[in-house]
Amino acid sequence: MTYTSINFADKFSLIKRQWEPKVIAEMNGTQFLLEKLKGDFVWHSHEDTDEVFIVITGNLRIDFRGGAVNIAPGEMFVVPKGVEHKPYAEHEVCVLILEPRDIAITGHEGKKNFSNVKAWI
Amino acid sequence: MTYTSINFADKFSLIKRQWEPKVIAEMNGTQFLLEKLKGDFVWHSHEDTDEVFIVITGNLRIDFRGGAVNIAPGEMFVVPKGVEHKPYAEHEVCVLILEPRDIAITGHEGKKNFSNVKAWI
Repeated sequence: MTYTSINFADKFSLIKRQWEPKVIAEMNGTQFLLEKLKGDFVWHSHEDTDEVFIVITGNLRIDFRGGAVNIAPGEMFVVPKGVEHKPYAEHEVCVLILEPRDIAITGHEGKKNFSNVKAWI
Repeated sequence: MTYTSINFADKFSLIKRQWEPKVIAEMNGTQFLLEKLKGDFVWHSHEDTDEVFIVITGNLRIDFRGGAVNIAPGEMFVVPKGVEHKPYAEHEVCVLILEPRDIAITGHEGKKNFSNVKAWI
């Protein structure tokens, strides 16, 4: 094994495009993804898994059918499984997302630059 | 459900004692724990699970039998399951730890102020 920590800022500097999650680590099959977001995602849910958002820089809003949450740097939020949600960022936000390696998306309407094969950086 | 983000700094302000992990969230049975550490923990391993350390403030060193890793704020590290390790902090460090709700510790030699019933804050 290697004894090197993973630096979020260093990894984000390697990400050139928005809406392209990159894998930086795994824990028991849960992937740690870094992603730059700006604008609207689509309404969707994950029937079999919770999803965690941790904001590194910028501000992320997640809309729900019954409300919304604002997540600032140094904050996190758990979207419970089965709950419809739509991420939104007015300005670019750098987010750490935790989701299972084999995650399924339900109600997906299409996503720009999306790849099911998530690359490591 | 509530639409409130979890602010790490706010939660850490509620933690008065070192070596007492507090639960702030769960994702699919994985707990998100905040803990203040200073000094040496004991050598131990987790036979059935990886463990994640994300440093919020301060600096954490994790010793292994074959090396060590230094984790600064904005950095993370995954300790693979079965690998003996010993966290150490010269000064107090505020850490976000991810581990299963029902984690077992192998090789545990004793821990100050440890409680198996992890309280939520």
